[in-house]
Amino acid sequence: MEAKRFLGKKIKVAGWVNSRRDHGKIVFLDLRDRSGILQIVAKKELVKEIKEEDILEVEGIVKERPKEMINPNLETGEIELKAEKIKILAKSHTLPFDLKNLKLTLPKLLDFRPLVLRNEKVKAIFKVQREIIDSFRRTMKKLGFFEFEAPQIVASATEGGAEVFPVEYYDKKTFLAQSPQLYKQILVSSFERVFTVCKAFRAEPSVTTRHLAEYISLDCEMGFIESWEDLLDVCQKVIKNIFSDLRKNCQKELKIFNATLPEIGKKIPRLKLREAQEIIFKRTGKDKTKEPDLDPEDEREICKFAKEKFNSELIFITHFPAEKRPFYTMPDPEDPNYTLSFDLLCRGLEIVTGGQRISDYKMLLKNMKKFGLKPKNFKFYLQAFKYGMPPEGGFAIGAERLTKQILNLENIREASLFPRDMQRVDLRLKRKKEE
Amino acid sequence: MEAKRFLGKKIKVAGWVNSRRDHGKIVFLDLRDRSGILQIVAKKELVKEIKEEDILEVEGIVKERPKEMINPNLETGEIELKAEKIKILAKSHTLPFDLKNLKLTLPKLLDFRPLVLRNEKVKAIFKVQREIIDSFRRTMKKLGFFEFEAPQIVASATEGGAEVFPVEYYDKKTFLAQSPQLYKQILVSSFERVFTVCKAFRAEPSVTTRHLAEYISLDCEMGFIESWEDLLDVCQKVIKNIFSDLRKNCQKELKIFNATLPEIGKKIPRLKLREAQEIIFKRTGKDKTKEPDLDPEDEREICKFAKEKFNSELIFITHFPAEKRPFYTMPDPEDPNYTLSFDLLCRGLEIVTGGQRISDYKMLLKNMKKFGLKPKNFKFYLQAFKYGMPPEGGFAIGAERLTKQILNLENIREASLFPRDMQRVDLRLKRKKEE
Repeated sequence: MEAKRFLGKKIKVAGWVNSRRDHGKIVFLDLRDRSGILQIVAKKELVKEIKEEDILEVEGIVKERPKEMINPNLETGEIELKAEKIKILAKSHTLPFDLKNLKLTLPKLLDFRPLVLRNEKVKAIFKVQREIIDSFRRTMKKLGFFEFEAPQIVASATEGGAEVFPVEYYDKKTFLAQSPQLYKQILVSSFERVFTVCKAFRAEPSVTTRHLAEYISLDCEMGFIESWEDLLDVCQKVIKNIFSDLRKNCQKELKIFNATLPEIGKKIPRLKLREAQEIIFKRTGKDKTKEPDLDPEDEREICKFAKEKFNSELIFITHFPAEKRPFYTMPDPEDPNYTLSFDLLCRGLEIVTGGQRISDYKMLLKNMKKFGLKPKNFKFYLQAFKYGMPPEGGFAIGAERLTKQILNLENIREASLFPRDMQRVDLRLKRKKEE
Repeated sequence: MEAKRFLGKKIKVAGWVNSRRDHGKIVFLDLRDRSGILQIVAKKELVKEIKEEDILEVEGIVKERPKEMINPNLETGEIELKAEKIKILAKSHTLPFDLKNLKLTLPKLLDFRPLVLRNEKVKAIFKVQREIIDSFRRTMKKLGFFEFEAPQIVASATEGGAEVFPVEYYDKKTFLAQSPQLYKQILVSSFERVFTVCKAFRAEPSVTTRHLAEYISLDCEMGFIESWEDLLDVCQKVIKNIFSDLRKNCQKELKIFNATLPEIGKKIPRLKLREAQEIIFKRTGKDKTKEPDLDPEDEREICKFAKEKFNSELIFITHFPAEKRPFYTMPDPEDPNYTLSFDLLCRGLEIVTGGQRISDYKMLLKNMKKFGLKPKNFKFYLQAFKYGMPPEGGFAIGAERLTKQILNLENIREASLFPRDMQRVDLRLKRKKEE
C-alpha cells in the first residue's frame, strides 16, 4: 500500500474488509488489497451493514495514527485513512469459518479453496512457489537455455509406464504427457539448451502426501555436456539461486511459516546409491543394499546423515540401477548395470530427478529393444538422434515438492493452487456410476 | 558466437556441420551452434568422412579471413577457425531433404518436425514467439499481475461447449481445460490481478488454417476495473509492448520473413459489432447485419477498412450479442442483448478475446440458469462471488495466432512447435479401429 506517501492528502482506495472492530461511535476496518492492509476509521453511520469480505471503495484523508495506536507489525501501521465517503462494491455472504485463523482439516481446506486462498498464510505459499519458478527461469535464461512450451497431449505413453491418463481424442486415443522428456531431447537437437515450465500428469494409483495427479515440472535439457556431472553442477546452481532469491524476496513469507532455507554448505554432497545404502545399513541395521531405489524411510535417513556429516540438508544420490530408470538413461561405462542418473533429495524427499541420456542413435535403438519398446513407435523422436545428437542430459524439479520442503508443509496438496488427485478435481469427484 | 574476441588465439568449439565446400586440398565447413555459424578451414585429411549435420568438436586458431573472403551477412564473417584437431561427437545419417533450403509440403514439414526445427527460418518463428510470450509476461508483472499455473484437468466442460476432450481419470471422467477462465476469475478474488501462460484445448471439429487442438493462451484477469474499457487499454498496452519488444529484439528474425510489424497508429480503433457490420454492408453489399458474429471474410474486410481509414492493422470489435458469449459475460447495461465484450483483430484474424464478467453473485446465478447451466455444478467457482468479488474482466491472446499474423505464415501449424490437430499428434494418428 502506497498510502503512506499521501499523508494529509485525500485518496481513494478499494479492497476487502479484512476485519471490523467497533468502538462506540467509531468503527475500525482493516481494508485488504494485493499490496497489504490499511486501517480505515469511520463513523458508525457510514459503515452500518459492513461485514468481513465486503468490498469497499473508500475516500478519505490519510492521517498519522495516535502514538499509542501505532502497529509495528503492519507496513502501514503508522497511518490510517479517515473515511469521508464509502461505496460498497460487493457484498459478501457470512463466512463459513474464520478466514484469518484457519483451523480446517485438509479436505475442508480444499473444498473451500477459492475462499481459503484469501488467507494471508495460504497466499504466502504461492508467493514462495512463484519465486521458485521465476528464479528457475532466470537462471536458465542466464545460462543460455531457450524456453519452450511443452505439448501436453502425446501420442503414446512415453516412458513405457502404466500410470498415464488416456484422452479421448476425436475417434482416437492419446495420453496426457507424463513429462516433457522426449520433446526437450528433440529440441536439444535444434536449440542445444532448452527448458520449460510445464504440467506433468501421473495417474498415481494411491493417495500419498507426496504425489499429485497434475504437477508443475521445471524441466531442462542441455547439449554438449563434457561429463554427466555438468548436470549436477547446473542443478546445484539452480537450487542455490532459488534459495538466495527466496532469501532476498520472500523474507515475509518465510517468516509466516517460521521456515528457514535448507542448509547446503559449499557443495551439495554426492553419493552413489550403493554407498548410500551401505551407510543406511550401518546406521539402522536394516539391510536394503540390494534394493533398486531408496524408499521414503531411506530418503529421510540419508538426509539425516547428510545433515550430520556435511551440514547439508540436500544430497545427490547417483548411479541408480539401469532397470529402474527409463530406456533413454545413459549406462555408466564403468558398470552398465548402473546409470549416469541422479536424484536430489531435500529434507528427506526427492525433489529433482535427472541424468545423462543416450545420445548415440544405434545405442538408443538397442536399449529400446532391451526395454521391450518398438522403435517404430518412436519414429518421430528418433529423428533427433538419427541426424546428429550431441552428448546431453537434463533434469526436472518438482515445483510443489520443493515448495513443500522449504515451508515444511505436511501435505503436497497445500502447495498446489488447485490440487488434483485420485479423488479430487476441485471438489471430490463422483464415480461414473454414481452420476 | 564469441569467437571474434579470440583473434589469434587457440579455441575449442563444437556444433553441427551446416555445410561443406571442398576446394582441392582445403575444405570449408560452416559449423552451427545456438549462437550462429563459424567457418572452419581444414585440411582435407582432417575431415575425410564429415557430412552435413555431423557434430564436431574443433580445436584451432581464430584467424582473420582474406579480404575477398569476408562475408558481411554473417556475424562471424570476418574470421574463420583454422582447424588443428577435429573430434567427431556424433554422426548423422544422410539427410532426407535439403535442410537449408526447405521446400516441403506442410505434412512433410510436420512429419520431419524434429529435423526441420534445425532450419534457421523455422527456428526464427519460435524466437519471435518466445519474445511475444516474454513480453506479455513482462508487461503483466510491471502492471502488478500475479502469475499462476492454470490447471489443465478440469471437472466439467467449463463453458458449456461441446468441443472438449474427455480424460479417463481413474474410474471417473474429467476434461481438458478449454481455457483457464474460471480459475483466473477465482484468483481475482484473492490476488486481484492474475495472469498465466498456459495450454488450452479445443476439440475443433474441422481442420482449418487457424485452429489447433492444443494452443498457448496468454491469459489475464483484473479486479477493481472502473470501466470495461480499462481492459481494452491494458490489452492495447500489452500488444504495443510486444511490438516494440519485437522491434528491439527480433530484427534478424523479422527480416528472414520480410515481415513488418503491424501498424497501430496512436490508438487501436474500436467499433461495435453492429457498426462494423454496417460498414461491411456498405463496402461489400453483403448484408450480414443480423449475424451474431463476424465470419472470416468479415474479419478480413473490417481490417481492410481499419487500415484504410485509421492506418491501423488492428481493430477492436466490441459488444457481441449475449447469446454468442459465455454465461459469465457482462451484459451492456444500455442494451442487455449485447455484452461488454471484445475481440481484437489483427490483419484479418481474431487474436484476442475478452470482456467484463458478471461479478455480482445473484446476477451470475440468474445468468447461469438462463444459459441452462446448473449452479450446483459450479459450486466451487461460485465461492469466489458469494464472498465478495470486485468488478472485473480480462482477456486471452492466442500466442500462435499472433505469431502467424506477425510473420504472415500461411498456416497456424507453422507457429506451433509440435502442433496437434484432428489428424495429427506429432505424426498422423491412426484410427482406433486401424490399430
